[in-house]
Amino acid sequence: MGKWQPYLEQKKDRHLDDLISFLRIPSISSLPDHETDVARAADWVAERLRTAGLEEVRIMPTNGHPVVYGQWLHSPGSPTVLIYGHFDVQPVDPVNLWTRPPFEPMVNQDRIYARGASDDKGNMLAPVLAIEALMRTNGRLPVNVKVFFEGQEEIGSPDLLEFISENRALLSCDMIFSADGSQWGEDQPAIVIGRRGLCALQIDVKGARGDLHSGTYGGAILNPIHALARLITTMHHPDGRVAVEGFYDDVRELAPEVKSYFAAVPYGADEVMAELDIREVFGEPGFTTCERLWARPTLELNGIWGGFQGEGTKTVIPSLAHAKISCRLVPDQDPEKVQNRVITHIQQHAPSGVSVTTRRSAGLADPVSAAVDHPGNLAAARVFEQLYKKKPYVVGMGGTIPVCGMFKKNLNADVINFSFGLKDENIHAPDEFFRISSFERAQKAWGLLLEALG
Amino acid sequence: MGKWQPYLEQKKDRHLDDLISFLRIPSISSLPDHETDVARAADWVAERLRTAGLEEVRIMPTNGHPVVYGQWLHSPGSPTVLIYGHFDVQPVDPVNLWTRPPFEPMVNQDRIYARGASDDKGNMLAPVLAIEALMRTNGRLPVNVKVFFEGQEEIGSPDLLEFISENRALLSCDMIFSADGSQWGEDQPAIVIGRRGLCALQIDVKGARGDLHSGTYGGAILNPIHALARLITTMHHPDGRVAVEGFYDDVRELAPEVKSYFAAVPYGADEVMAELDIREVFGEPGFTTCERLWARPTLELNGIWGGFQGEGTKTVIPSLAHAKISCRLVPDQDPEKVQNRVITHIQQHAPSGVSVTTRRSAGLADPVSAAVDHPGNLAAARVFEQLYKKKPYVVGMGGTIPVCGMFKKNLNADVINFSFGLKDENIHAPDEFFRISSFERAQKAWGLLLEALG
Repeated sequence: MGKWQPYLEQKKDRHLDDLISFLRIPSISSLPDHETDVARAADWVAERLRTAGLEEVRIMPTNGHPVVYGQWLHSPGSPTVLIYGHFDVQPVDPVNLWTRPPFEPMVNQDRIYARGASDDKGNMLAPVLAIEALMRTNGRLPVNVKVFFEGQEEIGSPDLLEFISENRALLSCDMIFSADGSQWGEDQPAIVIGRRGLCALQIDVKGARGDLHSGTYGGAILNPIHALARLITTMHHPDGRVAVEGFYDDVRELAPEVKSYFAAVPYGADEVMAELDIREVFGEPGFTTCERLWARPTLELNGIWGGFQGEGTKTVIPSLAHAKISCRLVPDQDPEKVQNRVITHIQQHAPSGVSVTTRRSAGLADPVSAAVDHPGNLAAARVFEQLYKKKPYVVGMGGTIPVCGMFKKNLNADVINFSFGLKDENIHAPDEFFRISSFERAQKAWGLLLEALG
Repeated sequence: MGKWQPYLEQKKDRHLDDLISFLRIPSISSLPDHETDVARAADWVAERLRTAGLEEVRIMPTNGHPVVYGQWLHSPGSPTVLIYGHFDVQPVDPVNLWTRPPFEPMVNQDRIYARGASDDKGNMLAPVLAIEALMRTNGRLPVNVKVFFEGQEEIGSPDLLEFISENRALLSCDMIFSADGSQWGEDQPAIVIGRRGLCALQIDVKGARGDLHSGTYGGAILNPIHALARLITTMHHPDGRVAVEGFYDDVRELAPEVKSYFAAVPYGADEVMAELDIREVFGEPGFTTCERLWARPTLELNGIWGGFQGEGTKTVIPSLAHAKISCRLVPDQDPEKVQNRVITHIQQHAPSGVSVTTRRSAGLADPVSAAVDHPGNLAAARVFEQLYKKKPYVVGMGGTIPVCGMFKKNLNADVINFSFGLKDENIHAPDEFFRISSFERAQKAWGLLLEALG
C-alpha cells in the first residue's frame, strides 16, 4: 500500500473542508448573474491544483466560462491521461424545496448537502486530492497527467468544441477519465462502454395572426394544437419505433457479447416500473429495457405548449403552439444528420393550414463508446474490483456528456467513466448531496487508478 | 316619432357621462379582489334602473355575484319581454398594452375606450336609457318589461341556472332580448337564428412519479406528451370531422332555407383568411365556412402543456401533460351527453403505459335557436331596417351565451340578439372601446323595439 493512502486518511477532515469551501461558491453557469461566481470557482480550482503539485496551472478563457488546466508530465514512457470534470453547477430552483440554502453546505452523518456536491464538485475534487497525496508522499505521479476542468457543462459546453480543437497539442493524451458521471451502486461498480449523443430542436406552429375566440372561428380553420399533435404523432409508429425516415440508418448493430453483458445486469422492466411508479414499460420492439436505454436511439418530446394553461376554461384557439424535441443517439449516428432528418420529416408532414417552422438547438453531441477491453476500462475494472470486492457490471449510459464526443473527435481519445455519484443523490434537484464515504472512496480510487496505469 | 327620441337627443351628453361613471367601476368577475367592485356595479345599475322609472328594482343574491332585477308590468294584454345584459367585465391583462388605464374611460372622436365599454356596459345601459326616455315622455312603456342584468357572465354564469330555476315566476316572459352579443357591421344589421352551446373538459396524462432525465429513461417508457398527442389526434379524422363516436348523433340537419340565408351573407373562406392572415381554411367536409361556424359542432383544443417551455434545451421526460378541450354544440346536441361521449372516447383510446384522467369543466351550455319568423326576430328585423335602411342578414353565432340555454330551459322563452357591439372593438383585449354612435343608435333601437312589440 502506497504511503499516499495513509496521507488521504490523515487529511480527510481537511479535504472535506476543501469540498465545503468549493461548494460555497454558487457557480451556476446558466445564469448571467453568476458569471463572476463561475470565475471565482475557476480561481479556486486553479489554486487547489497548484497546491496539489500540478504544474503549468492556468485559467484558460473561452467564448464563455473558462477552462482550468494543469499538468504533470514527468513520467516518460508512461501513458498520458487527461482527467475531466466540471466546476459549474445547475440552478437551484425551486429553492423553497431545499431544506437548507443550497450554497451553505451541511454535513449530516455520511452526507454532505449542497448544490454541486455530487454533480460534480465532490467527484471533480477527488482526483485532485489523490494527485496531491501521491505528490506529497512520492514526489511524483505514476503516469503523465493532464487535468481539464470546465465551467459550462451544465449548459451543454457550447464553447468547448472550439476550445478543444484550438488546443489539441496541449490536450493530447492517450485516454481520458471522466470524474463526471455516476457509479452503479453503493456496493456495486460498473464500467461504461457507451454514452448516447444528442441533438435537439423546437417546432413552432403558427395559425392565425392572434389568439382567436373558439366560438367565433372554431370549426372553420386548422387549430395549431391539432396540427402540432398530429405532426408529433407522425414521428413514432404506434409500437414505439421512430418513424422519421432514415432515423435508424447509421445505428450500429448490437454485438452479441454486448447483449449478454447487458443481460447480466440485474436491471430491467421491473426495476424501471418500481423506480418510476408506472405499470408498464414501453419502447422499441425487439429490445430489452437496458438495450433501449443504452444502445438504441430515441426521439422524445421534452415540452409542449400552446393556448390556455390556467384553471377553468378559456375558449381560445391559440395562434401558436410549440414543442421541444430531443434525440438520444448511438454509434454511428451523426447528430447533425439526425437533426436534418427530423427537420425534413417535419417539413414533409406539416399540414398546409398552418405555418410550421423549426429551430435547431445548439449542443449537438456525438455518441461515444469505449470497449470492455479498452485499457482504460481494464484499469478501471481492476480498481473497482479491488475497492468493491465485486466484478463490475458492463453497462451503457443513456445520458450525454457532450465533451466526450468533442474529445474523441479532436484528440482521438476515448473517455472512460470514473465517477462515484449515485442516482439517489438529487442531482439537478433540491437537496443534492454526496456521500462522504463516496468522496473518500473516490480519492482512493483515483490514486489506485493512476498507479494501475503507471 | 315618439317624444322619447328628442329626449334621447337632448340627454345624450348626460347619458355618455352615465356610461363613463359605469365604466369607472372595475367589476372584474373572475378576480376575487374585485368582488366588491362587482357589488358596486350592481348598486350602480340598481340605482340607474330606479331613476329610469323601473319598479321593484332589487339586487338579488346568488351563490356568486348578484343579479339586478327590475320591472314595469302595466301593459295588460301586451307581451312581456325580458331584457338581458351583464355588468361584469373581463380582466385587463396585459394591462401594459392599454393606451390608457382600462378603468379611466377616454373619449376620442366617436369612440369611448375602457374595459367593458362594448362588452357589455355600453350595450347594457342602452335599453335602460331608452326605458327612461319612454317613461319620462309617455309615462309608460308600450309593453311589459323585465330587466335581468347579471354579474357573472364573463365567468360562465355558474350560479344562474340555479337562480333562474328558483325564480321562474318572477322571470316568466314571452321572449327575451339580449343586449349582450354583437351586430354584423356598422352599416349592416343581422338577425341571429342560433348560438352554439358549449361543454369543456381537461385531460391529464400522468407517467412516472416525477419528471425524468431523458437520457436516463428515454426510450424505455411511454412519454406522456407522446401519449397525449396521439390521444388528441384520435379525436379528429384527418379531413377535419370529429371522430368521437356518436358526436354528431343529435345534430339537426341544416334546413335548405337556412343554407340559403347563410349563402346570401357575403362572408366566407376569403374573408376568414384575410381576417386571420392564413392561407387556407379547414373544417368539416361538405359545409361552407358559415355553416361550419354557425351550424356545425366542433371539438377544439384550447390549451396544451407539459414539460419544458423555456429557452434552449432541457432534456426532460415530463411526469405530466395536459390539454384543455371545448366543444361548440348545435341543436339538438346535449352538452352533458357530448361531454360524456368525449370522456368515453378518451378512456377508450388512453394508452396503457400512462394514466389518463379527465376533469369536467363547469359551464355546460345548451345550443339555442330562434327562427327567422320568431316574433322577436321579426320585430328586431323591422327596427334594424328602419335604422340601417338595409335588410338584415340572417346569421348564426358561433359563440355561446350560457344564460340563453338556461332561459330556454326554465322559462321556455327564446333569446333574441339585440346588441350593437362590433367585432373590431377589442372586447376581452387591451384598448376595448365602444362607438358612441353605436351607443346612441342602440338607445334609439331599444325604444323602437319596445314600440314595435307593443
